[in-house]
Amino acid sequence: MRPYELIKAKRDGQTLEAEDIRAFLDGYTKGDVPDYQMAAMCMAVFFKGLNPVELGAWARAMLESGEVLDLSDTPGIKVDKHSTGGVGDKVSLSLAPLAAACGVPVPMISGRGLGHTGGTLDKLESIPGFKVDLSVAEYRRLVREVGACLIGQTATLAPADKKLYALRDVTATVDCIPLIASSIMSKKMAEGIDALVLDVKVGSGAFMKTIEDARTLARTMIAIGQQMGKKVSALLTDMDQPLGRTVGNALEVIEAVEMLRGHAPADYTEVTLALTAEMLVLGGKAKDEAEARKKLLAVIADGSAEKKLRELVKAQGGDPAAIADLSKLPKAKATVKVGAPASGFITGIDSEAIGLAAMALGAGREKSTDKIDPAVGFVLEKKVGDAVAVGEPMVTVHYNSDAKLQDVKARILRAYKIGAAAPAKRPLVLERMG
Amino acid sequence: MRPYELIKAKRDGQTLEAEDIRAFLDGYTKGDVPDYQMAAMCMAVFFKGLNPVELGAWARAMLESGEVLDLSDTPGIKVDKHSTGGVGDKVSLSLAPLAAACGVPVPMISGRGLGHTGGTLDKLESIPGFKVDLSVAEYRRLVREVGACLIGQTATLAPADKKLYALRDVTATVDCIPLIASSIMSKKMAEGIDALVLDVKVGSGAFMKTIEDARTLARTMIAIGQQMGKKVSALLTDMDQPLGRTVGNALEVIEAVEMLRGHAPADYTEVTLALTAEMLVLGGKAKDEAEARKKLLAVIADGSAEKKLRELVKAQGGDPAAIADLSKLPKAKATVKVGAPASGFITGIDSEAIGLAAMALGAGREKSTDKIDPAVGFVLEKKVGDAVAVGEPMVTVHYNSDAKLQDVKARILRAYKIGAAAPAKRPLVLERMG
Repeated sequence: MRPYELIKAKRDGQTLEAEDIRAFLDGYTKGDVPDYQMAAMCMAVFFKGLNPVELGAWARAMLESGEVLDLSDTPGIKVDKHSTGGVGDKVSLSLAPLAAACGVPVPMISGRGLGHTGGTLDKLESIPGFKVDLSVAEYRRLVREVGACLIGQTATLAPADKKLYALRDVTATVDCIPLIASSIMSKKMAEGIDALVLDVKVGSGAFMKTIEDARTLARTMIAIGQQMGKKVSALLTDMDQPLGRTVGNALEVIEAVEMLRGHAPADYTEVTLALTAEMLVLGGKAKDEAEARKKLLAVIADGSAEKKLRELVKAQGGDPAAIADLSKLPKAKATVKVGAPASGFITGIDSEAIGLAAMALGAGREKSTDKIDPAVGFVLEKKVGDAVAVGEPMVTVHYNSDAKLQDVKARILRAYKIGAAAPAKRPLVLERMG
Repeated sequence: MRPYELIKAKRDGQTLEAEDIRAFLDGYTKGDVPDYQMAAMCMAVFFKGLNPVELGAWARAMLESGEVLDLSDTPGIKVDKHSTGGVGDKVSLSLAPLAAACGVPVPMISGRGLGHTGGTLDKLESIPGFKVDLSVAEYRRLVREVGACLIGQTATLAPADKKLYALRDVTATVDCIPLIASSIMSKKMAEGIDALVLDVKVGSGAFMKTIEDARTLARTMIAIGQQMGKKVSALLTDMDQPLGRTVGNALEVIEAVEMLRGHAPADYTEVTLALTAEMLVLGGKAKDEAEARKKLLAVIADGSAEKKLRELVKAQGGDPAAIADLSKLPKAKATVKVGAPASGFITGIDSEAIGLAAMALGAGREKSTDKIDPAVGFVLEKKVGDAVAVGEPMVTVHYNSDAKLQDVKARILRAYKIGAAAPAKRPLVLERMG
């Protein structure tokens, strides 16, 4: 069918043939199908969806629009983790060395921060010397020799997704579950993995605001993975407040290293352990979650997880001494504490608002061309459920310039909700799927 | 709001502000809003529609994207007719001189045929010398001096519509009632009219297949016209078979002239009289339909309607002798009759199939750059309800080349349905609205 007929068929709720989807996406990648036809198609998909077979074809066409890495020279089941994005989400920084220390090879292609969410690459780059733009050959070697490698998206992997995402971004077709799912899965499947653990964030600070939407997204991604013969499982995790106590690049690296030493905040530790345990089970290094957790606690206790991180940092050009001695990481010139405007209990922290405040401070980007300041950010002294007295510090702001400080403080004050009673405790891992 | 926000708002079923619609369409006309954003918007409108206020703003922005003709130097209420398009629809050819002969000035900007439907301009051009590309100044003068002028779309009228139509045509957003209605009305309102009669065709050969869709389209166009302070009425007319007995350019001109002489087929005569009577009432030349019909029959009987057509033809560069003596019109070299494959009654004639057969013969265009043959076409010897004996001619084909003749005959045979009994007679004018 011609592009016009395919758009019309989808618009009218008909099912598209896999080969037609393939031809349409291939045509788009090559430039034969113009942006305006793809824009109309994406809007039709927004309203009419894609069934599992269509979705598989769509994701596969995007995947095969570029190079698909072959990591078969690394023995074992290669497992990655993907998070749908949150605020304070430094899980990858501790998860990768933890899994690698337990013998699961972790090939991880990550993103940069944009808007209110941070990016793993930006966090890693706050480690002096750390390089994320390694060649595919180096990536392959490090997965094999170190057991983990974290790099940025390359132009050769899923170029259709790159082009399509830019179009969706300006045509109001980003928040569409089949398009999100096929975008994520096409990129992840290009990494050369055998299995994938999904961290689908749910809550006010996440892309998926409701558990139903999160379930649909998880189910959709799992179905795509299965069609491609990969093992995929998903944890739905809470993102109603930032994860852990730090927001900001170097501050999050510090917290991640502290997690590997066994003394990070309970929420961040728990989400990391739950996701990494999934990886160990999928990777065949533990028969169940209980055994996986035991192994993870062991590599924390004997220091081998932190040692693996230092090894990884060194292999990617970074200074491992900055992990051993965290004071060598970039440090902001000044700090200031934001006190509670009233006494009571913290009843909510608007993650998105905290993320945007961090961006305003320089920890994130508004436009993809903005430069970020690795040192600045927040330490959340109080989290949801904590009691607070009027004037008592809620957040410590690490800053290098006071130009936007008043605005940042005001944003923090608006993000924190104080009430008379502590809210009921929410579970961190809401559901497991797959 | 930015284009992105407007697309998202419409996608989510929100109502757009008139000024935002205006800015979006102005931006599109100027090229500031790219095709891909407009494509996404049109698809969102396809699913979520436009309410009457949005629709008025949309049509007005398209209208005011170009020149709006001022015909105030012609006294009286200027009235045009617009048809949503059918097969054998030569109504304009007789309606314009009829209305003008009764004193209603008719400024008419028409289109060319594409696909299965013919175009008034192509039909007129089968009259030797007839010019449809007059300047706006000549158009204005002829409306004033002759009382009617029929020209083609100019680049200065509603350029936004021209650009948008081309985009809708390749993004599967043509068959969307608010977009159809605003497209038609923006072009018609640019002509300088005071009132408009709409001929909304219903049936298998029409764009609107059901009476409900036709009603919605008519109601939508009437609402736009009213918002612009114009009098608009609509007749819903039958298009379950071609109108009249001829399909093809010169053949249709012959039938139109015969109508002005009082001996054309009843269906074509009745639809023309009903629509022209509406024009006389809207144009203040008759107090009601009965009086209007009396006046129309009078200008047929005394020859002044045909005289007006000759005057119009002469004013537009054509040879009026070809109207007085119809044998001077282009004539095909040969004719062949297509006989009935069985005895019985004609139970249906697929108008679209007949239109496509005429196109295949050379009477219409597949692509806008195709040249048409004014002489070729069909005379439908049998119409729905007629009895037919096996072998008796159903259609006379007028042709100049036998290259596609077998294909054309086969199409005609497929288009005619023969059954044991005559179907119930369908009314020609199904409903009046406005």
